[in-house]
Amino acid sequence: MNFSMSEAIEVLERTPQSLAHLLAGLSDSWLQCNEGEETWNAREVIEHLVEAEKWNWIPRLEMILQDGESNSFPPFDRFSHLQKSADSSLEEKLQEFQSLRTENLQKLKELIRPEHLELTGVHPALGPVKAREVISTWVVHDLTHTAQIVRVMAGRYRADVGPWIEYLGILKKRG
Amino acid sequence: MNFSMSEAIEVLERTPQSLAHLLAGLSDSWLQCNEGEETWNAREVIEHLVEAEKWNWIPRLEMILQDGESNSFPPFDRFSHLQKSADSSLEEKLQEFQSLRTENLQKLKELIRPEHLELTGVHPALGPVKAREVISTWVVHDLTHTAQIVRVMAGRYRADVGPWIEYLGILKKRG
Repeated sequence: MNFSMSEAIEVLERTPQSLAHLLAGLSDSWLQCNEGEETWNAREVIEHLVEAEKWNWIPRLEMILQDGESNSFPPFDRFSHLQKSADSSLEEKLQEFQSLRTENLQKLKELIRPEHLELTGVHPALGPVKAREVISTWVVHDLTHTAQIVRVMAGRYRADVGPWIEYLGILKKRG
Repeated sequence: MNFSMSEAIEVLERTPQSLAHLLAGLSDSWLQCNEGEETWNAREVIEHLVEAEKWNWIPRLEMILQDGESNSFPPFDRFSHLQKSADSSLEEKLQEFQSLRTENLQKLKELIRPEHLELTGVHPALGPVKAREVISTWVVHDLTHTAQIVRVMAGRYRADVGPWIEYLGILKKRG
């Protein structure tokens, strides 16, 4: 195990700023491209991160502390953001992600003591999970969606790189 | 083809800031982890981006304009940064990347007119390549190395996420 709370927080507190610097002000062509039907564009990934910030990490940690294994987590709808009307700008969504993340890290620090990390709750599909695993997954979830955004953007230039496609693993079709 | 010069520049001008916000101030445990022997850690990826900024993109575009297909590009040593002594901090390397990128985008704007985009040079391994393909590859190279950094970091928590590993494609072993 490599987990440490302070190192997990280091990553979690950096993601919103890093993504804002990557995405804010980009042309719609970068923000609206995706990898084909039923795949997400960069904007939809940010909306998903916002939803996860509202419904996923802290509520699940609170359930572990309050209910243990007596109740399983409500399922997190990984597609909930797709039903919302996209009436705010990307910049507003990035700001919302930053604000929610700041609040949630404050809650995390107040909520979780070292002796809580091995406490368990029940995930509706995965079964018993530990507080430490929730927090580790929060970190990796940030990183996986950052990787997704840059992969989606890179795919726009698949034909434009010409023969260099051979050297650019990120352009390999997902299989 | 999706290439447009202004949209390519949008991405190129954002990468250094985005990576600085992701990496500056992180613990060495995040910066020094890698994916096993002969793989790069985040710091080495930044050093590689610095080397590419010095030797790769603008020099190759200049050769296309000056020599066309009469001379092939000098090979770019993709491992050159590994021989350099790591005597500067990551923050200094990130700053160097930002400065070189700012200079190079200035040069790009001065150097390349729309009528130059289809001009060709010769890559030592790939054969004839167009100016447009060099610039497109510059963009995708930024994105692929951003994806690499977050994948390397995510891998540190492979064991820590517990059963969530099933949902986190970024943790799949590279094969």
